[in-house]
Amino acid sequence: MTPTQPIASVTPTIGLGVLHLFGWLPRSTAGDDDAGGGEDRPGAQADAGAAVVQAVKEAEADGVQVVTVSVLGHKADVGFMALGPDLWRLRRLQTDLQSAGLSVGYSYVSLTEVSEYAEGLPDETKRARLYPALPPAGMPAFCFYPMSKRRGEDEGSNWYALPFERRKQLMYGHGAVGRTFAGRILQLITGSTGLDDWEWGVTLFGVHPDDIKECVYRMRFDEASARFAEFGPFVLGMVAPVEAVLRSVLGDD
Amino acid sequence: MTPTQPIASVTPTIGLGVLHLFGWLPRSTAGDDDAGGGEDRPGAQADAGAAVVQAVKEAEADGVQVVTVSVLGHKADVGFMALGPDLWRLRRLQTDLQSAGLSVGYSYVSLTEVSEYAEGLPDETKRARLYPALPPAGMPAFCFYPMSKRRGEDEGSNWYALPFERRKQLMYGHGAVGRTFAGRILQLITGSTGLDDWEWGVTLFGVHPDDIKECVYRMRFDEASARFAEFGPFVLGMVAPVEAVLRSVLGDD
Amino acid sequence: MTPTQPIASVTPTIGLGVLHLFGWLPRSTAGDDDAGGGEDRPGAQADAGAAVVQAVKEAEADGVQVVTVSVLGHKADVGFMALGPDLWRLRRLQTDLQSAGLSVGYSYVSLTEVSEYAEGLPDETKRARLYPALPPAGMPAFCFYPMSKRRGEDEGSNWYALPFERRKQLMYGHGAVGRTFAGRILQLITGSTGLDDWEWGVTLFGVHPDDIKECVYRMRFDEASARFAEFGPFVLGMVAPVEAVLRSVLGDD
Amino acid sequence: MTPTQPIASVTPTIGLGVLHLFGWLPRSTAGDDDAGGGEDRPGAQADAGAAVVQAVKEAEADGVQVVTVSVLGHKADVGFMALGPDLWRLRRLQTDLQSAGLSVGYSYVSLTEVSEYAEGLPDETKRARLYPALPPAGMPAFCFYPMSKRRGEDEGSNWYALPFERRKQLMYGHGAVGRTFAGRILQLITGSTGLDDWEWGVTLFGVHPDDIKECVYRMRFDEASARFAEFGPFVLGMVAPVEAVLRSVLGDD
Amino acid sequence: MTPTQPIASVTPTIGLGVLHLFGWLPRSTAGDDDAGGGEDRPGAQADAGAAVVQAVKEAEADGVQVVTVSVLGHKADVGFMALGPDLWRLRRLQTDLQSAGLSVGYSYVSLTEVSEYAEGLPDETKRARLYPALPPAGMPAFCFYPMSKRRGEDEGSNWYALPFERRKQLMYGHGAVGRTFAGRILQLITGSTGLDDWEWGVTLFGVHPDDIKECVYRMRFDEASARFAEFGPFVLGMVAPVEAVLRSVLGDD
Repeated sequence: MTPTQPIASVTPTIGLGVLHLFGWLPRSTAGDDDAGGGEDRPGAQADAGAAVVQAVKEAEADGVQVVTVSVLGHKADVGFMALGPDLWRLRRLQTDLQSAGLSVGYSYVSLTEVSEYAEGLPDETKRARLYPALPPAGMPAFCFYPMSKRRGEDEGSNWYALPFERRKQLMYGHGAVGRTFAGRILQLITGSTGLDDWEWGVTLFGVHPDDIKECVYRMRFDEASARFAEFGPFVLGMVAPVEAVLRSVLGDD
Repeated sequence: MTPTQPIASVTPTIGLGVLHLFGWLPRSTAGDDDAGGGEDRPGAQADAGAAVVQAVKEAEADGVQVVTVSVLGHKADVGFMALGPDLWRLRRLQTDLQSAGLSVGYSYVSLTEVSEYAEGLPDETKRARLYPALPPAGMPAFCFYPMSKRRGEDEGSNWYALPFERRKQLMYGHGAVGRTFAGRILQLITGSTGLDDWEWGVTLFGVHPDDIKECVYRMRFDEASARFAEFGPFVLGMVAPVEAVLRSVLGDD
Repeated sequence: MTPTQPIASVTPTIGLGVLHLFGWLPRSTAGDDDAGGGEDRPGAQADAGAAVVQAVKEAEADGVQVVTVSVLGHKADVGFMALGPDLWRLRRLQTDLQSAGLSVGYSYVSLTEVSEYAEGLPDETKRARLYPALPPAGMPAFCFYPMSKRRGEDEGSNWYALPFERRKQLMYGHGAVGRTFAGRILQLITGSTGLDDWEWGVTLFGVHPDDIKECVYRMRFDEASARFAEFGPFVLGMVAPVEAVLRSVLGDD
Repeated sequence: MTPTQPIASVTPTIGLGVLHLFGWLPRSTAGDDDAGGGEDRPGAQADAGAAVVQAVKEAEADGVQVVTVSVLGHKADVGFMALGPDLWRLRRLQTDLQSAGLSVGYSYVSLTEVSEYAEGLPDETKRARLYPALPPAGMPAFCFYPMSKRRGEDEGSNWYALPFERRKQLMYGHGAVGRTFAGRILQLITGSTGLDDWEWGVTLFGVHPDDIKECVYRMRFDEASARFAEFGPFVLGMVAPVEAVLRSVLGDD
Repeated sequence: MTPTQPIASVTPTIGLGVLHLFGWLPRSTAGDDDAGGGEDRPGAQADAGAAVVQAVKEAEADGVQVVTVSVLGHKADVGFMALGPDLWRLRRLQTDLQSAGLSVGYSYVSLTEVSEYAEGLPDETKRARLYPALPPAGMPAFCFYPMSKRRGEDEGSNWYALPFERRKQLMYGHGAVGRTFAGRILQLITGSTGLDDWEWGVTLFGVHPDDIKECVYRMRFDEASARFAEFGPFVLGMVAPVEAVLRSVLGDD
């Protein structure tokens, strides 16, 4: 390919782009010590690890925040939550990770935002939502899930048929439940209507995994959730520096 | 295979065929510098890139419009939105891209159309819907999603049980929301009833990604959406010339 | 395997078995000119093409009708709609196509039928439904989709709770919409209750692709569809002789 | 692995375990006659065939009934319905088939049973349900599908909220429809609540494929189905001896 | 990768983390005795078996309980249910199993818990739920499924809109059904709200497979299930020591 002129950045007018990437890296397996090809060539795992570290460090050097997560279960081995103003730079991180060997199995695209119900909040609170500093210290338990507000056939179960004041009141009650978990849970809600399959992405950081469980369980009884929320898949993991995350999912090689 | 006579074109009586293709290209990865086979043979990536550029240029030379998109997340790396009168020519573009190495993971088939609610619009407006010139300048944020009108069990939530005048009125209100985003968003709605799994394809071009988010979010409160719309998967990306798109998802090789 | 005696045919007591097969053939890609294995060995594409043609010709020689289709999008590259009395012979066609390299990604199993609402029609009409001659001349646009009648929780939206006369009346109105497309659309509805995941398969042949779109769109407002129909995935393509279909999806090799 | 002591059998207290396995075997394809690796090594197909026959014969020698089926369409090439008292022996059959090359793409786990509505039937009838002799002679058309009873939000559409006598009455009417197909259809319903994703597995053997279609279609109007049944995927095929089934899906090699 | 300091454990404040892993191991197949690559290299199976045994033994040595299961059908060949306080240690077990060759196809993440309706139970009962000793002796039949409480559009079918006392009463009735299976079934319900896609994971151990079927079937008529439960996929298998499980799914090699 021939060189072309630089591409102008694609950025939100306010706030940051957010890209959650979940996937797998090439892995050495028990039968790999003989010759012979296949995805799991000996050494591929070490190469992949080094290239992942480099991709993350370069993004961070360009001002992108990258939270790295070791994931439990079949949905992924590793997760990367990247926040930055320019979507091209987030795409470059994805490309670098894929070139490092990452198979992306699940992802989510969203933007930080101040919701329409939070316009009256202090500037500092709004700024923390638009430009959060992640990950929070001392909260290694990590959960991500997307959600939408229900548009039920019955008027009474259609969020988008409610007047603003009623919605604001419901959201306020919902927030009150969340606030009882202050210090145990940090919650970041990013907007994705028109960007991905659900309307919001919810990222939770917790001191303990049962803090996350209890918080989400309690909120489920709140009317805003009980009557109006629909949830996508949940991914659970542990936040750690990228090297530690890689070691936890690839072994000591 | 033996040569056969040319095949007659298959075209809509008015307007253009539209083919959205989303997928992945072969990629060099961190462990690829040694010998050994596999999909990711060294050089395959460069070959693929050149062949993709050629496929796009040949289609354009034949009068097909091709919008190329760098996509974020797991649904695809690259997207191609092609518009042209002959479905065989669109199929040839798909074949050329696949022969270049494209794995098509998601797609959408539709036709440009003037909706039954827009028959009274000026000819120029109708012509812009049937024969749009894409992509619009200065709108690099790209979103595609398909949608249908709800056919709920309850009469009141069944779009297809409403009289024409009521539907027209609802669509007019819906359009009014969209018009407040003039200059920030260009929207193209193409028809796919009987052609693909949803009834319409919606392609949005925006100046900023939050223009897309705000526009779709605002419309969701409009009655035509709140009560009657059902949405398929959303794909988000950035429009750029084909060479730049390839470089963004394959790296500098 | 040792030889065994011939197997008795498995046939419907009236009408024909119908097998729709949609899939992909091995393809030469941009990086294939060097040595090295993988699915896409050079020459594999030409071998596959020749073997597909032979499989189709042999089935036709045995009295099986085979409609060959070039498909747009990710659901398939090629489609085969085969009609014949003996299910074993249809299975042999599938086996021959798979041995030729076809990966079957989607399919549908049904039988031609005269619906219970059409018992009073002239014998010739009934015969055309049980033993159709396909494909119709001059109708290259092709669409297949399966559908079922809704069994909603609410009595009023449960087709199977309606009395026969009411269903017959609804089906008659539905047919009237279809008849306005005579000459532009040929529709074949085959029965699949107990045979595949939906209750009917619908195959449409059209002069133009927008004939298909307009026909299905108009029918959607008919009460039999608006209140009682549920639709599966839609596959769109172009009918052509097998050699032309292969060339369109594999390129000129 | 080191030898261990034999494992005690795991059996139902009455009746038999039933394992439906559907999948694919390795296949020689048009491009396979040259050297080079890949799954489809020449000879692999013949080896697989012989090993499948041996696996089935050994299971039969151990008292397991195995119905072998040639399947139409993309869901599988071959099906095995195995009935025997010990789940470990059914698992060994699955292992032997997988070691023979079978890729299992779909399956179903159930137990033969006498339903709570059939307790008053003659002992011989009950015994035929618990210990059926399969396949029935002269009924080569085969269909399998799972189903559940609806637990609708509305009390009137919730099977599990109905009193026993009402359910018994509905099941009796349902059975009456089935009995009109005596001699044309043999139906075996096996229980899977708590064992697999649906509550029952339904296996139908028919003289002709349209016997199956007509039987399932007629039953769909019965209230027990119309209001309370939910159906999973349908698999259709032809019953034959294992050698004939293999030949039908692999060709004559 | 360079060494880093040890990572602090991530544990629930009370109870244990629970990781269900279901998947497949590399397998020698009928055509594997010749040279040539592919995943199923001869010897790979034996290597995998030994590495799986080692991974399980090391986890047990670190105080993790690991129940090993031979699974029937297409969802998995083997299952591992691991319980331990530190999520990093559960992740290491997953990594060791994957490095041994396990492909994880399905999984579930949850925590042991005492439900809010069981706060008044004796300490010993609560302790048995938080720190169970698994597997129970003499109960080789194994079933796992996840479930949620319904949040229906209609108030009357929305569990989370019911007052606590009503929910407690319903759960008590539900438990009463379960208690009639004492000695035949051991049930462990673990919480996963906010951790995985459903709200609870249910693991059943039974003397016979029809104990499991009858227990789940009976409970389905209980109002707490009939009106308010939604169920995910069911996995059925047999519990045995790891060596016996491996032999049952890989053969004697």
